[in-house]
Amino acid sequence: MPQLPAFDVMTATCPSRTSLVRIANKWTAMVVIALSSGRMRFRDLRATVDGISAKVLTETLRDLERDGLVTRHMYAEVPPRVEYELTALGRTLHAPLHALGSWAEDHITEVLAARESYDARQ
Amino acid sequence: MPQLPAFDVMTATCPSRTSLVRIANKWTAMVVIALSSGRMRFRDLRATVDGISAKVLTETLRDLERDGLVTRHMYAEVPPRVEYELTALGRTLHAPLHALGSWAEDHITEVLAARESYDARQ
Repeated sequence: MPQLPAFDVMTATCPSRTSLVRIANKWTAMVVIALSSGRMRFRDLRATVDGISAKVLTETLRDLERDGLVTRHMYAEVPPRVEYELTALGRTLHAPLHALGSWAEDHITEVLAARESYDARQ
Repeated sequence: MPQLPAFDVMTATCPSRTSLVRIANKWTAMVVIALSSGRMRFRDLRATVDGISAKVLTETLRDLERDGLVTRHMYAEVPPRVEYELTALGRTLHAPLHALGSWAEDHITEVLAARESYDARQ
C-alpha cells in the first residue's frame, strides 16, 4: 500500500503549517462560527462578528475562499447581492473552532483570576 | 438559582474575546501541543516548535503563564534551569488545539488543491 506523505505542522516548511496559520486565527474562528448557521451577507457577517473591520473581513473571507472553506454566491441584482457560505470542507472546521470559542467563554472567569494573580506578583 | 453571566466571544468588549484572541493563535496552538507531552525547557520547546523566534516564544509563554495555562518551574542550578508545564486549565485546551493541528495536517491536500484552483481563476 502506498505510504501517504506525513504532514507535520511543527515543521516550519510543511504545507500544513500554512493551513494552521489560517485556521488558528481569531477572525477565522469567529467568521466560521458565524457562518455555521447558514449563508450570510457581508454586512450581516460584519454585524455578527462585532469589532471586525471591513478590510479584515474582506481579507478573511478571501483567504477562506482561496483555501476552499467558503463559497461566494453572487446575485445579479440592483444593488448586487453577495452571500458567503461554508463549503463542505469549511463545515468540518466548525467543531474545533466552536470548541475554542466555547472554551474562551467557559473558562474566562478562571483566566481573569489568573491574570489578576499574575499582575499582582509583578 | 443565580444566573451565571453570559459571556459571548462575538461581542468585542466581552472579556472572553481576550481569551479567544490568546488561544486562537498559531503559536499558542503549537506551544500547547508541544507541552502536552510533559514539561519542557525553553530550548527544547524552541526546537520542537520549528520556526518560532526566541522573542515570540518568550512572549507566548509569558502570556500563557499570565492566563493561567502554563507554569514556570525554576531550579537554582548553574546554569539556572527553567521548565514550562501546562496547568490543569492549560491541559483542557489541548484537545481543541490538537484538533486544529490535526485538521491542518489531514486536509492540507484539499486546501492546496483549492488554492491552485482559486489562483488559476484570478
